[in-house]
Amino acid sequence: MTLNVYLSGEIHTDWREQIIDGAKGLDVTFSSPVTDHDASDDCGVAILGAEDNKYWHDHKGAMINAIRTRKAIEDADVVVVRFGEKYRQWNAAFDAGYAAAKGKSLIVLQQPEHDHPLKEVDAAALAVAREPHQVVEILRYVLTGGLSS
Amino acid sequence: MTLNVYLSGEIHTDWREQIIDGAKGLDVTFSSPVTDHDASDDCGVAILGAEDNKYWHDHKGAMINAIRTRKAIEDADVVVVRFGEKYRQWNAAFDAGYAAAKGKSLIVLQQPEHDHPLKEVDAAALAVAREPHQVVEILRYVLTGGLSS
Amino acid sequence: MTLNVYLSGEIHTDWREQIIDGAKGLDVTFSSPVTDHDASDDCGVAILGAEDNKYWHDHKGAMINAIRTRKAIEDADVVVVRFGEKYRQWNAAFDAGYAAAKGKSLIVLQQPEHDHPLKEVDAAALAVAREPHQVVEILRYVLTGGLSS
Amino acid sequence: MTLNVYLSGEIHTDWREQIIDGAKGLDVTFSSPVTDHDASDDCGVAILGAEDNKYWHDHKGAMINAIRTRKAIEDADVVVVRFGEKYRQWNAAFDAGYAAAKGKSLIVLQQPEHDHPLKEVDAAALAVAREPHQVVEILRYVLTGGLSS
Amino acid sequence: MTLNVYLSGEIHTDWREQIIDGAKGLDVTFSSPVTDHDASDDCGVAILGAEDNKYWHDHKGAMINAIRTRKAIEDADVVVVRFGEKYRQWNAAFDAGYAAAKGKSLIVLQQPEHDHPLKEVDAAALAVAREPHQVVEILRYVLTGGLSS
Amino acid sequence: MTLNVYLSGEIHTDWREQIIDGAKGLDVTFSSPVTDHDASDDCGVAILGAEDNKYWHDHKGAMINAIRTRKAIEDADVVVVRFGEKYRQWNAAFDAGYAAAKGKSLIVLQQPEHDHPLKEVDAAALAVAREPHQVVEILRYVLTGGLSS
Amino acid sequence: MTLNVYLSGEIHTDWREQIIDGAKGLDVTFSSPVTDHDASDDCGVAILGAEDNKYWHDHKGAMINAIRTRKAIEDADVVVVRFGEKYRQWNAAFDAGYAAAKGKSLIVLQQPEHDHPLKEVDAAALAVAREPHQVVEILRYVLTGGLSS
Amino acid sequence: MTLNVYLSGEIHTDWREQIIDGAKGLDVTFSSPVTDHDASDDCGVAILGAEDNKYWHDHKGAMINAIRTRKAIEDADVVVVRFGEKYRQWNAAFDAGYAAAKGKSLIVLQQPEHDHPLKEVDAAALAVAREPHQVVEILRYVLTGGLSS
Repeated sequence: MTLNVYLSGEIHTDWREQIIDGAKGLDVTFSSPVTDHDASDDCGVAILGAEDNKYWHDHKGAMINAIRTRKAIEDADVVVVRFGEKYRQWNAAFDAGYAAAKGKSLIVLQQPEHDHPLKEVDAAALAVAREPHQVVEILRYVLTGGLSS
Repeated sequence: MTLNVYLSGEIHTDWREQIIDGAKGLDVTFSSPVTDHDASDDCGVAILGAEDNKYWHDHKGAMINAIRTRKAIEDADVVVVRFGEKYRQWNAAFDAGYAAAKGKSLIVLQQPEHDHPLKEVDAAALAVAREPHQVVEILRYVLTGGLSS
Repeated sequence: MTLNVYLSGEIHTDWREQIIDGAKGLDVTFSSPVTDHDASDDCGVAILGAEDNKYWHDHKGAMINAIRTRKAIEDADVVVVRFGEKYRQWNAAFDAGYAAAKGKSLIVLQQPEHDHPLKEVDAAALAVAREPHQVVEILRYVLTGGLSS
Repeated sequence: MTLNVYLSGEIHTDWREQIIDGAKGLDVTFSSPVTDHDASDDCGVAILGAEDNKYWHDHKGAMINAIRTRKAIEDADVVVVRFGEKYRQWNAAFDAGYAAAKGKSLIVLQQPEHDHPLKEVDAAALAVAREPHQVVEILRYVLTGGLSS
Repeated sequence: MTLNVYLSGEIHTDWREQIIDGAKGLDVTFSSPVTDHDASDDCGVAILGAEDNKYWHDHKGAMINAIRTRKAIEDADVVVVRFGEKYRQWNAAFDAGYAAAKGKSLIVLQQPEHDHPLKEVDAAALAVAREPHQVVEILRYVLTGGLSS
Repeated sequence: MTLNVYLSGEIHTDWREQIIDGAKGLDVTFSSPVTDHDASDDCGVAILGAEDNKYWHDHKGAMINAIRTRKAIEDADVVVVRFGEKYRQWNAAFDAGYAAAKGKSLIVLQQPEHDHPLKEVDAAALAVAREPHQVVEILRYVLTGGLSS
Repeated sequence: MTLNVYLSGEIHTDWREQIIDGAKGLDVTFSSPVTDHDASDDCGVAILGAEDNKYWHDHKGAMINAIRTRKAIEDADVVVVRFGEKYRQWNAAFDAGYAAAKGKSLIVLQQPEHDHPLKEVDAAALAVAREPHQVVEILRYVLTGGLSS
Repeated sequence: MTLNVYLSGEIHTDWREQIIDGAKGLDVTFSSPVTDHDASDDCGVAILGAEDNKYWHDHKGAMINAIRTRKAIEDADVVVVRFGEKYRQWNAAFDAGYAAAKGKSLIVLQQPEHDHPLKEVDAAALAVAREPHQVVEILRYVLTGGLSS
């Protein structure tokens, strides 16, 4: 069994690297959104031409990013969504809803202070983790049946 | 043509009433989540028994609310998602993602200051409105082909 | 909002009547398997001709019952599955799995002593109730947003 | 043609090994749930933290196990479900229902004394076998068209 | 529960009338292909213009008939397929395959001398009846749970 | 049997009225795009605010029109697409492709001089008509089995 | 582009070998039902035990054959269905209907004397061929864009 | 991540070659319709026999081309549709609609003078490009997250 895992959400800490490093040796393929904040914001106008209006500037970029995101979620068996300390992160919650509707196994990675506002998202998840290493342990267990001692 | 419209998101202002009132006479059926904040938070333990742990208290409620929410989105032709001034509203963004993945027509109702953090959500929408009466105008136009003079 | 609710599982107690009675006045349509035990066992041979072999006797009946069961689950928004005190009730668990795969909202009705063997079924459910009146309360809340005082 | 076969159900006898051994040389990929009983029961709390309440202890584990089970059934062409002599095995029947709803080819492996309580499950199956070697013969025939002499 | 039943196949005997008459008083809606043989053969050229080539003459008619047939099968809960004594009736077997792939409950109505050539079709059916009144009895039982005495 | 029919394409002649008039008395429900050319072009900016850039002016309108179009095609059993003498009518061909992918029965209404450029569209259709009254005849035949004498 | 092609229908002539030989060098993977007539008829009882009743003898075999057939059609891009000179071949027509409902590209291989009884099957096909080499030419053209000179 | 990209539309300029050349080194697989105009027009009669009537001549070819086109779109993650300066190109718009209904990411490649007639097609797209190199840049960004400097 190979697991395709999409790592959605917060882009300002190294949680993705921690999971990818921790999962070395497991039969997992990871995908992510573009995590270069500037490229992600500006890809639309950089490729397709400038816009006077900031709304359309953002829109062109978000739609190109959607080509990557939709493909990655469609191909995923497991979608991990990380909610960080800062920002509103509506795109993370959007990805969680999208993944849930597509029948993907959802793992939410978040701190306890967000339990209440995230309760609807958590209710659609198969696991709520606090730390990246817990996500690694879940992947290891799902693939090998083994638990770390 | 009858439109089933689900009104998702913010529960602290009267935007739903404005839309429902404005759409009087149009062939529209509206549905909403439970907007009584206390009932929505406590339905799980009130019906199925208390929990010591606040996480499971929330969880039991969120899952019962999901029975209503999933049914309403599944039945909807159009999902309107309102992002208000306050709170994180991850459940609104989750509903937007869920609706998009199910191929529903999505209308986002939000103020310009949130354009940037909502750009991925907006990119999945067929309309981004600022005021409830604009949502009414969209429904009127979609159903009748007429524009207010 | 109208809810179509399929009542699956145990046929030797009056739990269905309790739920249907309790839900009077709510916008719910109920369906059930055939609960006449003899008719359910013998419908195949009674209609299509006797079988020497008990296996095929059972088989012909089970397949005709499936016409009703599949239709009822397909049409349902909510599937309630009752596990009683006696018998193996594999058909109840089968219905639960079938409903889960079809994306139906699942409510399990069972006593605490079965929590452990039912944990995989419960993990697919949006509510685990102990008494029929709790199922009624869930339906009432989902439809009206109100909780009994 | 390669067949992906998921082996669901009873975990206390060596029926899986008998099938996997017997199918050596055939173009089959097998998957199974985690069959280490303790790991399967405790994976949730071992990875995500202890629970005071046994119900939630079980629940956290069952949901992590579902990540593996859903993936395996989704990928399978054939789902073999074994009902053993002991225990209630509702998860086996749940998997059978889930697989049937997903359109998978279902093979049930069970003894004749369970024919009557399993008649609804059998009615959804393409074969009912009594012994593991019969499952091997079915896989061999499906893949090669040949019957053992 | 209302059943939509599509009556496919043989058009030279009164089996449809027998079923429709027998089911009077039951909550069933019936649909059928066009059973006027000449209209069915010639509808294409009668409406859309003559063809020199008999193949295209037939083709234009068959495609218009498909508008009705596809709609009727799509709407059906149960598809009854009648194989008569005469003709090759490939369209009946085609409808059976189409219905099976769409997950419809299939009832085959045929005489024992065709059991062997129809075995693959029968293997996809939930009932194999010999006489129209048996189909009526199945519908009555599925809807009411009652068996004729 | 009731047919839902969506009338897509050319908006400068009275072909829709001819079909709707001709079908009086038949069990058909018709839907159409907004055929007021100015309203259709300007609905986006009229409701949601002006755009400096003509591209986004068009875009906002086209997306609101899509709410109506997608709903109408989703609900349709039959999609009639009319290609007129003038204009490029790419939206008509787009609707035809969309309807074909959704498994709708497609009827194309076009003149012989367009047979060659429309051959891929026609290849997905169940009928190619030249005149509106032929579409009426098809609907009458599909619903009643009768041909005009 | 690789094409998966399922070769359904008549098993008494060498049409499959002609197509497979002719397609040497093309990027095609072929699958077929079991074409050993005796094995196909008796596989059920040979593996799962004898039946007194010929109907169930046939049934057990047909259901095991369905494991192979369903998998092969599900995996196929193109389904070629051959109707021969003899026998009723209802299973060929059933496969054609099944494939059509699954959205597979259907090629029918049949002689002109069967054009009329096969018109509904042909109406669901993208090509009607008379000789195996024409099927090879279609596959070659679809994969390479080239026509034999 | 590998992207499967289908290049639909105009066949008289070298835009496909520009994109394929530009994407060298990226993890992209391209597919296209048959771009040999004569082969595409005549494949039906060349393989399956001549037709007196030009309509059926075209029809037989268009249906064989559909085997390739449907397979390529079904397998694609991204569909690029090019509208050129000349011809009506209804098949391009048809492919766009088909791809949109299948949930594929759509990129439209067209000149500004067609913005207005293409507005409904563009409204279903995630990007509207003017030049082939922009399509290459989108693919590069989606796969690598990098923008050309």
